[in-house]
Amino acid sequence: MSENWFCEYPTPGSGFQFRYTEALARERSAFQKIEVFRSEDFGIVLCLDDAVMVTERNEFAYHEMIIHVPMLTHPNPKRVLVVGGGDAGALREIVKHSSVEKAVQVEIDQKVVDMCRKYYGWVNPTYDNPKVELIIGDAIEYVKTTNERFDVVIVDSSDPIGPAEGLFREPFYRDVHRILTDDGIVSSQLGSPFLHHPQIGKLISMYRKIFPIAHLYTTYTPEYPSGMWGLGIASKRVDPALRAPAVFPRQSNAKKGAAPLPPNIERYRELAPRLKYYNPQVHTAAFILPEYVRKSIDG
Amino acid sequence: MSENWFCEYPTPGSGFQFRYTEALARERSAFQKIEVFRSEDFGIVLCLDDAVMVTERNEFAYHEMIIHVPMLTHPNPKRVLVVGGGDAGALREIVKHSSVEKAVQVEIDQKVVDMCRKYYGWVNPTYDNPKVELIIGDAIEYVKTTNERFDVVIVDSSDPIGPAEGLFREPFYRDVHRILTDDGIVSSQLGSPFLHHPQIGKLISMYRKIFPIAHLYTTYTPEYPSGMWGLGIASKRVDPALRAPAVFPRQSNAKKGAAPLPPNIERYRELAPRLKYYNPQVHTAAFILPEYVRKSIDG
Repeated sequence: MSENWFCEYPTPGSGFQFRYTEALARERSAFQKIEVFRSEDFGIVLCLDDAVMVTERNEFAYHEMIIHVPMLTHPNPKRVLVVGGGDAGALREIVKHSSVEKAVQVEIDQKVVDMCRKYYGWVNPTYDNPKVELIIGDAIEYVKTTNERFDVVIVDSSDPIGPAEGLFREPFYRDVHRILTDDGIVSSQLGSPFLHHPQIGKLISMYRKIFPIAHLYTTYTPEYPSGMWGLGIASKRVDPALRAPAVFPRQSNAKKGAAPLPPNIERYRELAPRLKYYNPQVHTAAFILPEYVRKSIDG
Repeated sequence: MSENWFCEYPTPGSGFQFRYTEALARERSAFQKIEVFRSEDFGIVLCLDDAVMVTERNEFAYHEMIIHVPMLTHPNPKRVLVVGGGDAGALREIVKHSSVEKAVQVEIDQKVVDMCRKYYGWVNPTYDNPKVELIIGDAIEYVKTTNERFDVVIVDSSDPIGPAEGLFREPFYRDVHRILTDDGIVSSQLGSPFLHHPQIGKLISMYRKIFPIAHLYTTYTPEYPSGMWGLGIASKRVDPALRAPAVFPRQSNAKKGAAPLPPNIERYRELAPRLKYYNPQVHTAAFILPEYVRKSIDG
């Protein structure tokens, strides 16, 4: 392979590669290897520990889905916590919601923040938003000790092997539950259901021990292994799988006799001109899993 | 790259590769290059003209969706035509339907059939089914001249560059319309909406010139470029996007006052034990497109 290809190997037997015209940065922080490339097909690409994290071309599919599904499920999200997400893509989507009064981000790696400030156009304006507070530190420690409370928590971490390991464990989610308000919702990235379904099944089971409502949902991410990405969501009271403002235009939105679903449709309409992936139908459809994935979660 | 990796380049700037333990066959037919590999991650893999066509591990995601969506939309499919599909994966799904009396396949390349008979376990039993008739020939000529009529037509072709080119053109679909019965439905493979959305938008527009109902729907295919695969469907009378037996269990299935949807639920239940991807919810959700894809189709 020529030296201007980057290849990620999600398994020893398969790989995804892209050609780059320039390697913009290659550093090792205290936590991980950080690389930034200018690619032909995906724009600027951030890789951590040899895995693609952010592509300029398609990051919206992941960020819109990890953010707007919980944010438009919650009746009125004012205070939001992001764990990880040093690229500020999640924060950028959060501050699009006019209900938000404060968004706190706890990212462990200052170098990731610095790198993203330099190469992605949305990063500086997002961190400069007066509603945003950036804390460089350990999110496990933060959720254990903070007295702050949040309506929505986003776990926008890297994969479970490496610095993010503890963010996939039960003690962390018990603390997340503690700092969430009564209508609180947490969403998280869980990996590819095609490649990692035993691991993902266990994580959803763990969520269900702690929260009354938990689901897996998916988004199309050509830049991540297998192209199918799994997101987790756990909720104290409102079911995100029932919360889409308008599920299918030709169908009524609730079973006869069931309480009508609060629509949130005005909040969606406010965002809509700036969305490229999410719409209310996509919200609901994302919870429908291919039968083999559904079985690995629900048995 | 070491010699025991196969790499497909859907664009000059990106690639998907798998490692193989054995190259089982490498031939050139009158129509194309045919290769078969034993891979570590995907089982037996068939490649035509350097593109992955069939993987033993995940072919079900594509075949179940290109077949059961039209077959469970149609009220009573008895006669089915498959264009292409020499690997017999589409035929295998068709003959699972007890309503089927005859399934005709027109495949241009005898060598693909021979190769698949040798390496995929489902192929011989499928071609040996007495309801199946295999014709080696040009499907464009066949649909132009046949006096047979079909309830469902499946265009299970390779990509639009190469021997399948004419299967992506209007004259072919005018003939398909002619040989379809009054409730007739055609489904087809159209490429990746992520990579090929201008082309796919044009194809759906072409379908809409010929048929009153036409849609794009998608399936997760980690073995095909981008992992998001686009299937087209066009119908004379019944709308496949409204036809799922039970859309969301908690929601009513029809707008107040609308005609109830014919359920086909018994026919689904008969198939269900043998399905790995399709279920009625997946059927309906597959028509919900990410906003950027929806816009490229519906404007």
